[in-house]
Amino acid sequence: MELIDGKKIADDIKKEIAIEVEKMVAEGKKRPHLAAVLVGHDGGSETYVAHKVKACEQCGFTSTLIRFEDDVTEEKLLETIDELNKNTDIDGFIVQLPLPKHISEQKIIEAIDYRKDVDGFHPINVGRMSIGLPCFLSATPAGIIELLRRYNIPTKGANCVVLGRSNIVGKPVATLMMQKGYPGDATVTVCHSATKNLKEICAQADIIIAALGSPGFVTEDMVKPGAVIIDVGTTRVPDVTRKSGFRLSGDVDFENVAPKCSYITPVPGGVGPMTIVSLMKNTLLAGQHVIY
Amino acid sequence: MELIDGKKIADDIKKEIAIEVEKMVAEGKKRPHLAAVLVGHDGGSETYVAHKVKACEQCGFTSTLIRFEDDVTEEKLLETIDELNKNTDIDGFIVQLPLPKHISEQKIIEAIDYRKDVDGFHPINVGRMSIGLPCFLSATPAGIIELLRRYNIPTKGANCVVLGRSNIVGKPVATLMMQKGYPGDATVTVCHSATKNLKEICAQADIIIAALGSPGFVTEDMVKPGAVIIDVGTTRVPDVTRKSGFRLSGDVDFENVAPKCSYITPVPGGVGPMTIVSLMKNTLLAGQHVIY
Repeated sequence: MELIDGKKIADDIKKEIAIEVEKMVAEGKKRPHLAAVLVGHDGGSETYVAHKVKACEQCGFTSTLIRFEDDVTEEKLLETIDELNKNTDIDGFIVQLPLPKHISEQKIIEAIDYRKDVDGFHPINVGRMSIGLPCFLSATPAGIIELLRRYNIPTKGANCVVLGRSNIVGKPVATLMMQKGYPGDATVTVCHSATKNLKEICAQADIIIAALGSPGFVTEDMVKPGAVIIDVGTTRVPDVTRKSGFRLSGDVDFENVAPKCSYITPVPGGVGPMTIVSLMKNTLLAGQHVIY
Repeated sequence: MELIDGKKIADDIKKEIAIEVEKMVAEGKKRPHLAAVLVGHDGGSETYVAHKVKACEQCGFTSTLIRFEDDVTEEKLLETIDELNKNTDIDGFIVQLPLPKHISEQKIIEAIDYRKDVDGFHPINVGRMSIGLPCFLSATPAGIIELLRRYNIPTKGANCVVLGRSNIVGKPVATLMMQKGYPGDATVTVCHSATKNLKEICAQADIIIAALGSPGFVTEDMVKPGAVIIDVGTTRVPDVTRKSGFRLSGDVDFENVAPKCSYITPVPGGVGPMTIVSLMKNTLLAGQHVIY
């Protein structure tokens, strides 16, 4: 069993990006500039945004954080997006989700100029990804694909089971895994809450991508010896032994599943760091203006 | 075994649309207006466009056919699209594919205002479909879903195998079949040329949607007793006994597969008529301006 070290791969990629950025600067170009809009003080969101800002520094990007209180109006947020769309100094930006309930996330996402949509959530980027056109790939699916690539994990003709059909992980990663080329060309099955024979389906999988948000869901009996396991789950589970009061738990019963696998991602330190690094790659693309 | 009568369902839907249209007219609204752009004289394209124009008449739509010779420039075609985008009398329009090689189909598709893109090929409509937002659904996948709905075929938790991963059938129909609700909630597996154990996968399927364009590919040994078979294939096969010199062949060995099925679509008369009727439904939506 080999542990897939998302942290190390993410650090490698950040260094590669930093070299690219210094090249750009040496050529007289500006540093890519990422703006992040953060509404309220949700603990998870604060942490994610802080990680993103730090990653920007590591990559040599300029970053700007724009904060609003929980009671910001949708109108005000749309105004800010309009300004960011027009601001030529900003290459890409994200609006950290979730947003307060009085704001339509979909409306906000669709208001972002797709050429600056480095989260890849705008329908036009989702559609382009599905068709196989140049676009900003959504961060988590792109991070998963990159892990498979960096570990040279064979995917052609592999039975790949995706657990979960969310718009931000399950559906897009399924699309990427079935696309022509490498990593891709897999036979992909998407399972979800309505799936009946889930254990049997998993037990036939060469690759399982678990994105359910259900701690420890994938157990040892569901995994074929030698399978590759990508664990996308990051659920906060109460843990009194931790200073924070919680720990992050994946969708996989790691302790019992790991010994059976050929490759497995840990939680944390697997897919998580790759998600942020995918955002950095998109920001680099945005700074290079190659998606239009 | 019950034959799924796509022709009858399509006729029913056209009548339903015609009633809607007469209601709109009675309320003082204009008839939905579909324009079709046809380049060259490809036999298949001529036939499809003629069927579409006829279907418009049956639905009470206004239709306009714009013809160009094979040597039309991309620039001229883009100009025409721009005019159609701006023409408020045209509610929706299609550019019949395939186009001559000197014209970029993708460029043409992306030039169409997505609010008039009744073929549902624009990335923004593809993305919205994937996310589950209101949009113009691509015609063939929408037609398949409608057949399942009209025949009350259970899909929740069903093992659905999609053969083929094309942008216009395989990928979108897989997305629709896995979406929440009915018809949907199926466990979907997408197979293609790189799939290894295709026979076994098909033999476990409750529903097979065959969209490979490979005549007679699905044989009796690949089908579980009681399975539902949707045959999307329409390949022209030489046939000297026909006046046209060819017949349409599906992807399924109908003669031997049909007796094992619970439901099966014939070719022709199954998915084909539904594809055109989906375009009519999109044109109605365009005329009602409910997609924006």
